[in-house]
Amino acid sequence: MHDFSQSFRDEFADLLKWRRDVRHFRTDPVDPAMLARCLATFGLAPSVGLSEPWRIVSLTSDIIRQTAIANFEAANQQALAGYSGEKAKRYAGLKLSGMRQAPVQLAIFCDEGTDKGAGLGALSMPEMRRYSVVAAMTQFWLAARAEGLGVGWVSIIDPAALTRALEVPAGWALVGYLCVGYPEEDHTTPELERKGWEVRAGGLDILER
Amino acid sequence: MHDFSQSFRDEFADLLKWRRDVRHFRTDPVDPAMLARCLATFGLAPSVGLSEPWRIVSLTSDIIRQTAIANFEAANQQALAGYSGEKAKRYAGLKLSGMRQAPVQLAIFCDEGTDKGAGLGALSMPEMRRYSVVAAMTQFWLAARAEGLGVGWVSIIDPAALTRALEVPAGWALVGYLCVGYPEEDHTTPELERKGWEVRAGGLDILER
Repeated sequence: MHDFSQSFRDEFADLLKWRRDVRHFRTDPVDPAMLARCLATFGLAPSVGLSEPWRIVSLTSDIIRQTAIANFEAANQQALAGYSGEKAKRYAGLKLSGMRQAPVQLAIFCDEGTDKGAGLGALSMPEMRRYSVVAAMTQFWLAARAEGLGVGWVSIIDPAALTRALEVPAGWALVGYLCVGYPEEDHTTPELERKGWEVRAGGLDILER
Repeated sequence: MHDFSQSFRDEFADLLKWRRDVRHFRTDPVDPAMLARCLATFGLAPSVGLSEPWRIVSLTSDIIRQTAIANFEAANQQALAGYSGEKAKRYAGLKLSGMRQAPVQLAIFCDEGTDKGAGLGALSMPEMRRYSVVAAMTQFWLAARAEGLGVGWVSIIDPAALTRALEVPAGWALVGYLCVGYPEEDHTTPELERKGWEVRAGGLDILER
């Protein structure tokens, strides 16, 4: 039995407080060994039926990065069109991705058709495979922050178009697009709160049944 | 800027190694203050557009717990029917939920219709709200383990039937059912691997594009 100390729990709480969805990155490279240590946390993540359905594509060529940026910009224009007045002005002023700066960019997929785990736990809730990938991404995010790296999750993406552009095997579904690099600044307050888009409530109402 | 030490990173790696999907619980109660500390991590989780879409139902009455157990057992019978021969025998021998023992049981929902965040980041990938809930559940899972508590995620559930039985507000979608309590034993190896169902690979192939 492994016991964790109060001081570890306190520092873990600090890690959660300082983790941010980063959109402002420095362009200097990330040490590949550091990145590999962070990515190794995928292998320790919970996965339904031990299916380990996470698949990773690293976008390194200029041309594919330009394709991804164009995808984001089109999705962002479409999203902007859904707001009007003051809200539209505010939306247009937000920086919603670090895709032009982040030195590491990863498209994270779920292999929906994997045989691994023989389907255990995923019959009545097949979305559990994708949820397993999200759990792994969350662990990676925290491990990266503990190394001083920032992670930004871009969801303003047309997932079908990006999946086609990346020419991944059939059955892979895009779960998220991650920008990784050193953050330009550190905060305990979310950027959307600092920019006046939304306020973090932080509370939790629990219904009893 | 908050720097994390190598010793913290080492212990965080231990936390990931010792986190398990627990199905064998002691029945003694969990200190409510400890549980509240773990649940407070939800408020620090990343959420799309700062939508904070997580909603929690604590199952405390005998009758609703019996309903949840019956739901699991029916889903489990259906899943068993999909296997044959040796695999069916092995499936039938697995303990896939701690719902008869775990002192704390939480149904975790996503409020798909929340206005909070004004839809930012969720137009092209509306599943991002549910993914935000999964990220929060992952943080809770790790915080609980750091307190010595075990968490087991039950996905062998008919989510529509459980949602109806819990009489939650319209628009809430079940993301997962968590059993929480002190584990009967601790391991660094997943139970499904110890029981011969599947082997953890742990490796990570990364495609380059």
